[in-house]
Amino acid sequence: MMNGAQVLIRTLVGAGVDVCFANPGTSEMHFVAALDAVPAMRAVLALFEGVVTGAADGYGRMADRPAATLLHLGPGLGNGMANLHNAMRARTPMVNVIGDHATYHKQYDAPLESDIEGYARLVSRFVRTTQTPAALAGDALAAIAAANGPPSGIASLILPADVSWLPAGEPAAAPPRKPAEPVAASTIDAVARVLRSGKPAALLLNGGALRERGLLAASRVAQHTGAKLLCDTFPARLERGAGLPAPERLNYLAELTTAQLKDLAHLVVVESRAPVSFFAYPEKPSYLLPAGCEVHELASPAHDSSAALEQLVEALGAGATPPQLQPTQRPELASGALTAEAVGRAIGALLPEHAIVADEGNTAGVFTGWLTAGAPPHSWLCLTGGAIGQGMPLATGAAVACPERKVISLEADGSAMYTVQALWTQAREALDVTTVVLSNRSYAILNMELGRVGATPPGPRALSMLDLSRPTLDFVSIARGMGVNAARAQTADEFNRLFQVAMSERGPQLIEAVL
Amino acid sequence: MMNGAQVLIRTLVGAGVDVCFANPGTSEMHFVAALDAVPAMRAVLALFEGVVTGAADGYGRMADRPAATLLHLGPGLGNGMANLHNAMRARTPMVNVIGDHATYHKQYDAPLESDIEGYARLVSRFVRTTQTPAALAGDALAAIAAANGPPSGIASLILPADVSWLPAGEPAAAPPRKPAEPVAASTIDAVARVLRSGKPAALLLNGGALRERGLLAASRVAQHTGAKLLCDTFPARLERGAGLPAPERLNYLAELTTAQLKDLAHLVVVESRAPVSFFAYPEKPSYLLPAGCEVHELASPAHDSSAALEQLVEALGAGATPPQLQPTQRPELASGALTAEAVGRAIGALLPEHAIVADEGNTAGVFTGWLTAGAPPHSWLCLTGGAIGQGMPLATGAAVACPERKVISLEADGSAMYTVQALWTQAREALDVTTVVLSNRSYAILNMELGRVGATPPGPRALSMLDLSRPTLDFVSIARGMGVNAARAQTADEFNRLFQVAMSERGPQLIEAVL
Repeated sequence: MMNGAQVLIRTLVGAGVDVCFANPGTSEMHFVAALDAVPAMRAVLALFEGVVTGAADGYGRMADRPAATLLHLGPGLGNGMANLHNAMRARTPMVNVIGDHATYHKQYDAPLESDIEGYARLVSRFVRTTQTPAALAGDALAAIAAANGPPSGIASLILPADVSWLPAGEPAAAPPRKPAEPVAASTIDAVARVLRSGKPAALLLNGGALRERGLLAASRVAQHTGAKLLCDTFPARLERGAGLPAPERLNYLAELTTAQLKDLAHLVVVESRAPVSFFAYPEKPSYLLPAGCEVHELASPAHDSSAALEQLVEALGAGATPPQLQPTQRPELASGALTAEAVGRAIGALLPEHAIVADEGNTAGVFTGWLTAGAPPHSWLCLTGGAIGQGMPLATGAAVACPERKVISLEADGSAMYTVQALWTQAREALDVTTVVLSNRSYAILNMELGRVGATPPGPRALSMLDLSRPTLDFVSIARGMGVNAARAQTADEFNRLFQVAMSERGPQLIEAVL
Repeated sequence: MMNGAQVLIRTLVGAGVDVCFANPGTSEMHFVAALDAVPAMRAVLALFEGVVTGAADGYGRMADRPAATLLHLGPGLGNGMANLHNAMRARTPMVNVIGDHATYHKQYDAPLESDIEGYARLVSRFVRTTQTPAALAGDALAAIAAANGPPSGIASLILPADVSWLPAGEPAAAPPRKPAEPVAASTIDAVARVLRSGKPAALLLNGGALRERGLLAASRVAQHTGAKLLCDTFPARLERGAGLPAPERLNYLAELTTAQLKDLAHLVVVESRAPVSFFAYPEKPSYLLPAGCEVHELASPAHDSSAALEQLVEALGAGATPPQLQPTQRPELASGALTAEAVGRAIGALLPEHAIVADEGNTAGVFTGWLTAGAPPHSWLCLTGGAIGQGMPLATGAAVACPERKVISLEADGSAMYTVQALWTQAREALDVTTVVLSNRSYAILNMELGRVGATPPGPRALSMLDLSRPTLDFVSIARGMGVNAARAQTADEFNRLFQVAMSERGPQLIEAVL
């Protein structure tokens, strides 16, 4: 009879969960041993759990189905929490398998004992500890179903070591995935009435509405009614580029978001909600809609929002209205000094079709967004939960999900150092990821925020806490230390050349752009 | 009037908490800005929160008073959780200051919103969110008191951004530290009777009993009564070396621990408890004492255990019995191939007096323990909670606490990659830390554990999950990338020379020992 580990892996694979990002320990050794019995499960090793969870997030966003993670008790899960927070905000499907002590061992409070369910509940929509081998296959199916949703999300299955090593019967076959709920006709009609009212209105999109089908329908609606087309500041995945409708992204700076939302009487949210400020600032509003603006929900994340938008097109009689499509437009390459804009120009000019951009460029990446707007169609992945250290793992997972697509990992130097171990996994798996580190040797965003929060004019000790120049981080050296080809660009021309080469070759590379 | 941030920092400094390991974000900007107003607070920047919390652990173990940490909301705390787990198991005094959104902003569920108290409770003995500026000074004192104990531990104070930026009155002065509880005379007498019974007995020490005073008293007791003198496998801090009593450390391998405890009728625990296996293994016991062995607690972590041991000396009339002291004994340097033993010989031969060893050498470090046993007196810091990634941060914090002492950071390559960012802080602060990476290019302990848990004979896919050789990690390159001098040793002679130089110079260095 198969042991629990084999039953679990076979059940996962049977339900389409056939990639597992892993950083195992002793309590997960039976799971690891079982990998040879189930070759359909691809296990991807990472040196740190933040890489594991961030990679599973990137995979889930691009594959539209969960990867599994393999984590070592509470502290292993703890190391992965920040990127689970981001994945939770992204509503990424994911199945965490968290090893625990054997059921009978927990009473002894051994050094690694912890409240794993307590950890898991903070970031999961489903948490269960499998108590017996007989329950394992069923618990695994329940976890997978919770991860798939809709709405999709994080499921955490806690696997005691003895449940893993004892005989556990047979794997279970997954039922078909639950379809998304349809949106009620009355809701469609109500939104249609609002948009026909002639008052200033906008559609705010997120989630599945940011794929091609949803964007096309939403654009028809906007063109037909005069409503603005907006999308959230940090969507999990935005399909964009030439030939696709380009919703206006809400700005990170609340001051500017308020201007984008000015005079609105109606906001129709699609897998989104009324915009709020990322942080609070003294004397500035947290809630960003103008007074009196009404919020109407067309579709929640549990719905098929693209279908709802298409129904709305029909209800409005907008089927003949062409959507507004982004024209092809590539920026000129820059020359001379290397600036954030020069980096953006090179990326915009050279981005290959169907590229995936994992964007953790932060302040140094602001130019890249608009300079790539007219590049060939590509996917754009954002920092959904604000917990930095997401970008490099996210790029890693996206590359595992889409081996045929070029992945650009756009990183600020401060953020890059949180989970830099992702580079090793990229090298080990020969993933086609080009990392661009925007090296301004500063937590630049905090220099800006220090002023925005109204702190007293900063003295030298405060400023030194935002300074990454003592010592200088040498990302070329760090990357090579993990087996990734790397080079440094100090002029725009150097960057252009290096980026062009990276786009024409395959495999992991890193370019440090010294700004 | 001072704002909350200034009140907090001044209250901390007034209570002796004058070092803060920090990785701040927007919600902590007022705390950062206030650093210039209170120069007595030393802020130490780290690139990742696991470094922050591990460094605070190392600091607390060596300084015997808390450092503060500065962390950014739930995800920032999450990144620090694994080392907080270790610090909790070490009973290290520590005061976490965790920034949160402004009180009025929480209702909006902004991207970084999370259940910070839920995170903090998993690793803290004290958790409080300060709700008003007026409550801040008092809450800070309560947190400091909880951290100091006795028993000491982790206190987490959650600081909403508006509490930090609003006027908050005056700092508060700390009351004197609470003294440890005395052990009841009846307990001393009962233990004395047990030890006089003539039946096989042992003393098992941990916590404060592993400082010089406790060790000397415990050794007199052992010499006088014939009891064995033991200490736990992974103590937070053990004072050891020539001229000190040397308790026998319990082995990590339960099979060997069982042999160490064989035939015992009585175990007297001092800030410890009955030994259990680190993990569960099929068909092997979790509880390691022989059947019928009685456990007697002389002192808990709330007690002054050294005083209790001295009372026990008196009750036994053992005052004239000399303690058994470790003789001075240095191993010979090795020559030829570089092995884990050769590394241990060099460290044992060259370790300076009053050095601090942060030991995360794991399998590759087993020789170093006994080869340094007769070196001049030094402090030994262990992986208390089993969550790897502790060593380099721990060494960092110990070096901040004891700038006049040489710190040796003994690291296995697998463990080193969890929180390798600590090297940058060592460079930035010019800390006197010599890191020795024992590079066997493997999660070697898991190769051993794979067999111990009785997993099926591993196939190539399982073994590849324990293999760190594809690509090889180049720690020299990684360290230089973070501004730390580094060199590689491939023979024993090379290692001897590099280690000798490192011991004779000051400042951060890294030696990669290729085994």
